Amino acid sequence: MTSSPDAARFPDAPAIRATAAAMADAARAETLRHFRSPALVPDNKLATGFDPVTEADRASERAMRAILARERPEDAILGEEYGVQPGRSGLTWVLDPIDGTRAYLCGAPTWGVLIGLSDADGPRYGVIDQPWTGERFEGGLGTARMTSPHGERPLAVRRGVALDQATLLTTFPEVGTAEDGAAFRRVAAQVRLTRYGLDCYAYALLAMGQVDLVIEAGLQPYDIVAPIAVIAAAGGIVTDWQGGPAHGGGRVIAAATPELHAAALALLNG
Amino acid sequence: MTSSPDAARFPDAPAIRATAAAMADAARAETLRHFRSPALVPDNKLATGFDPVTEADRASERAMRAILARERPEDAILGEEYGVQPGRSGLTWVLDPIDGTRAYLCGAPTWGVLIGLSDADGPRYGVIDQPWTGERFEGGLGTARMTSPHGERPLAVRRGVALDQATLLTTFPEVGTAEDGAAFRRVAAQVRLTRYGLDCYAYALLAMGQVDLVIEAGLQPYDIVAPIAVIAAAGGIVTDWQGGPAHGGGRVIAAATPELHAAALALLNG
Repeated sequence: MTSSPDAARFPDAPAIRATAAAMADAARAETLRHFRSPALVPDNKLATGFDPVTEADRASERAMRAILARERPEDAILGEEYGVQPGRSGLTWVLDPIDGTRAYLCGAPTWGVLIGLSDADGPRYGVIDQPWTGERFEGGLGTARMTSPHGERPLAVRRGVALDQATLLTTFPEVGTAEDGAAFRRVAAQVRLTRYGLDCYAYALLAMGQVDLVIEAGLQPYDIVAPIAVIAAAGGIVTDWQGGPAHGGGRVIAAATPELHAAALALLNG
Repeated sequence: MTSSPDAARFPDAPAIRATAAAMADAARAETLRHFRSPALVPDNKLATGFDPVTEADRASERAMRAILARERPEDAILGEEYGVQPGRSGLTWVLDPIDGTRAYLCGAPTWGVLIGLSDADGPRYGVIDQPWTGERFEGGLGTARMTSPHGERPLAVRRGVALDQATLLTTFPEVGTAEDGAAFRRVAAQVRLTRYGLDCYAYALLAMGQVDLVIEAGLQPYDIVAPIAVIAAAGGIVTDWQGGPAHGGGRVIAAATPELHAAALALLNG
């Protein structure tokens, strides 16, 4: 892939991808060790409400950071559980050791490990890994592919689906604030099918060409940097609800095509 | 397991279980053949709204019926796609070739194949199979176990979780009629965590001891006969919202313990 612009800007792309694969493997081991274990008891991050974190989240992030400390000590890190570590290379690894801790606690397979890599221009590369199913979705630095026990396939969004035939995903039915939720429901009212509860797996499904829109609110950077890279590599679009960059988190829309993106943005802001 | 009451009533339990395993294997092949295929186009069962059925649903049910025709021609069949076939044995196979066709169409892994066996007293045996993850949940006729590529484990509900610490699952946020939905939300307001969108996988998670309550409305018999058998074998309880038999479908509650069942029923009927 020496002809891609990323290959010129990232001469060490193969090494970066190998590091990310080792990180994903390490996170798989830690998350699967605790998955569906009766001994796993969540801590609650909130005084009111329930925002769980577990030893599995922390062990997964520590395992990934240990690999970066050894292989890429110049790069910065932003991780959900252990915060910011400054770097000198201009690259930042953005890590969510378990995206979908609630799903993880339920034993459902729709959580994932998110590994993103950003430079000053935003997300360049990302991995969405699903340890239980063995699926790994990778995009950027010249690649856009999924591997799984059932085989390997390229990632590509689907085209030509009109809004009234589209499938829309989100994680929480309430979708952020009351205003956010009302905006979401204006889109939901126009699509054929709306489904809930998938966390980062929703973005992987969009990159696979299985669904057409993902709309969420209240995201953190570590929730979305890796999905942005995977979806961009698969030919899709991720922005905030004003059409600007989404890698800072907040209100996010991912769309398979420019047409669906524009139609959904108009409804969100209508 | 010769001491179980089922062993006396079902002397051919090993043969029944072997037939069910062959049916689940056959349904796996048919459902995986079409899963995530761009060529799969759903038909809509409804004039208004979207109740999809696909060639995958039909091929999966035909494959299971072909095995029953050969191995158990005396038994009756009730299947979602091909209806009722009368029998003479007093046993009825209750089949949902894809429970969660919407999830299947999205490419999510939380759909399943349901194989139930009922006699005049209700569900006696069930299989919840998840082809993509390779997970199989089996309960009744002396067994309660899960097999998967990650290993085998017994199925057992969890005990000792109070309502305010419980996890509640359902598939659709609206949960049936407006009245059904209001009743559901009275329970949801009291539990720690509510999650959506899992179809039959929700019942498997309850049988595994991962979640505590599943509440749904508008079910058909083929949606619930197999889950009832699996959950009963794992030590849990499934009834309708009045506490009566649930294998006819409609409004269904599954609970890990009698205490949670009673507490949730009181709220549903409050």
